[in-house]
Amino acid sequence: MEEAPVRGDIEIRVRYAETDRMGLLHHANYLVYFEQARTELLRDMGLTYRDMEDKGFLLVLTKIEVRYKQPARYDDVLTVRTTVVRTTPIRIEHRYDVLRDGQLIAEGNTTLACVDREGKLQALPDWFLERKTVKK
Amino acid sequence: MEEAPVRGDIEIRVRYAETDRMGLLHHANYLVYFEQARTELLRDMGLTYRDMEDKGFLLVLTKIEVRYKQPARYDDVLTVRTTVVRTTPIRIEHRYDVLRDGQLIAEGNTTLACVDREGKLQALPDWFLERKTVKK
Amino acid sequence: MEEAPVRGDIEIRVRYAETDRMGLLHHANYLVYFEQARTELLRDMGLTYRDMEDKGFLLVLTKIEVRYKQPARYDDVLTVRTTVVRTTPIRIEHRYDVLRDGQLIAEGNTTLACVDREGKLQALPDWFLERKTVKK
Amino acid sequence: MEEAPVRGDIEIRVRYAETDRMGLLHHANYLVYFEQARTELLRDMGLTYRDMEDKGFLLVLTKIEVRYKQPARYDDVLTVRTTVVRTTPIRIEHRYDVLRDGQLIAEGNTTLACVDREGKLQALPDWFLERKTVKK
Repeated sequence: MEEAPVRGDIEIRVRYAETDRMGLLHHANYLVYFEQARTELLRDMGLTYRDMEDKGFLLVLTKIEVRYKQPARYDDVLTVRTTVVRTTPIRIEHRYDVLRDGQLIAEGNTTLACVDREGKLQALPDWFLERKTVKK
Repeated sequence: MEEAPVRGDIEIRVRYAETDRMGLLHHANYLVYFEQARTELLRDMGLTYRDMEDKGFLLVLTKIEVRYKQPARYDDVLTVRTTVVRTTPIRIEHRYDVLRDGQLIAEGNTTLACVDREGKLQALPDWFLERKTVKK
Repeated sequence: MEEAPVRGDIEIRVRYAETDRMGLLHHANYLVYFEQARTELLRDMGLTYRDMEDKGFLLVLTKIEVRYKQPARYDDVLTVRTTVVRTTPIRIEHRYDVLRDGQLIAEGNTTLACVDREGKLQALPDWFLERKTVKK
Repeated sequence: MEEAPVRGDIEIRVRYAETDRMGLLHHANYLVYFEQARTELLRDMGLTYRDMEDKGFLLVLTKIEVRYKQPARYDDVLTVRTTVVRTTPIRIEHRYDVLRDGQLIAEGNTTLACVDREGKLQALPDWFLERKTVKK
C-alpha cells in the first residue's frame, strides 16, 4: 500500500510591488511564493515553521531550480501546488507547479537542509518526520 | 562656534528588480535606500550598525515620511544625501534628499529609537553619542 | 445625511522573506501592504487598479507617512484597515490602521495623484469618482 | 586561437532589508544580485540593458539554478563573478560565482531568451552579438 504524496495548493495574487519594468512578476519573487507555499503545506500538516525555528530546527535552502514558461502579470491569481518529493533524515525536497487558470506557467524544485542555530547540519526532529506523510 | 551637521552622500543605481509595472522605482524601495544611506553615514563615523546590533543596541524605525517629487527610473544613478537632524539620549532623526543629476526628486525623514533585544527602549551608548558629530 | 466613509479590511500573513535580521517585518514592507490594501478596497468598489492603469489612469504616490508602534513578526496575521480620507478631482488620500489581534501596531497615510502615461497630472475619471463612495 | 570568455566582477554589500529572520541574506535576493551583475557585465561591453529594452529587445529569464554553499550575512561585501557561458542567436547563458573573501559561497546559472514587447521569441540584434566577446 502506497502513501499518497504530501501535496498542497495555495493561491497568491501578484502584488504591484512584485512586478517589474516589463509589467511582469519579477522572477525572484517566485522563490518567495515557493517559500510561502511550503510554509502553508507544513501548516496543513499541523506544524508551523515559526515553531520549528523557535525550537532550534532551521531549514536552509541549499539548492533551487526554476523553469519559467509563461509570464505572470500584476493582479493575476496564481496557484502554487507544492509536493514533498523526498525526505531524508536531514533534507527535504519539494516540487512546485505554478498554475494560472489551470495552465502551468512555471515549475521549480528546492532542497532544504536542517541546521542548528550555528548553521551545522542536524537531523530533522522525530515529531517532524512522523508528521511528514500525514495531512490533517 | 557651531559644529557642522553630520552629513553624507552615497550613490545607488536603481536595480531592475526595484522597478514596477510603471517602469519606475517602486516607492517602498526608497526606504531601503534610506536605510543603506544611514548605515554608510554611520560607517563614515567609524561605526558599523552590525557591531551596534551585535552589542545589543538595536535601532528601530518609529516614524517615516517621504515626499515623492519626480519619479526615478531603472538604471538611474541616484544620490542619497543623509543628514542627522537631531539626536536625543534615545532617538535619532535623519533627513534624506534624493537627487538625480543635482535635482531633488524625493525627500524623507525618519525617527529611530534605540531598543534592547527585547524591544525595550534604552539609552544610546556613550561611544555612539561621542562619535555622532565627528566625521572621520 | 452623511455618507459612510469608504473603508475595507484585508488580512495579510507576514512572509519569511519580509522579515529582517531583527526577526521583525521590515519597515519598508508596510508600504507594500498598504498598496495591496487599497487595491482590494478598489476591488470592493467594483473596480480594478489594473484596468484603471490599462485605461491610462495611473495613480502615483506623492506622499507617505508611517508611524510604527509595535513590531510585527514572521507568520503574524495582520489586518490592514484602509479608509478613503479625502478625494479631490486629482488626488486621493488614504489612512491605514494595521492591527494584530485587534491591537493597533502601525498607522499610515498616503496621498496618490492621478497621472497619464507621461506622468502629467490629470483628473480622475468620472467612472472612478462616481464609484468612490459606493461599496458593492 | 580561442577568445577569452566574457567575464566580469562586481561587489555588492548585503543590505539590512535583504536579510531575514535567520540573520542571513534571503535566498531570493541572490537572483537580484545576479541580475545586477549581468547588467554591469553588459555595461562593461559598452551596452546598457535599458537601451536594449527601449529598442524592443527584452531579455526574459527562462531558467535559473542556484546552489547555496555558505550563508551570507548583513553588511558582508560579496563579489559576484559573471561569465557568459554560451550565446545562441536567441539565448544567453550565464554562470555566477558568489565569493566572500575569495571563498565561493554560492553559484548559479541562468538562461535568458530574447523576446519582443509581446513576449514572442526573436533573434538577438547584430549589434549585441558583435559586442558579446569584446570587453571595453
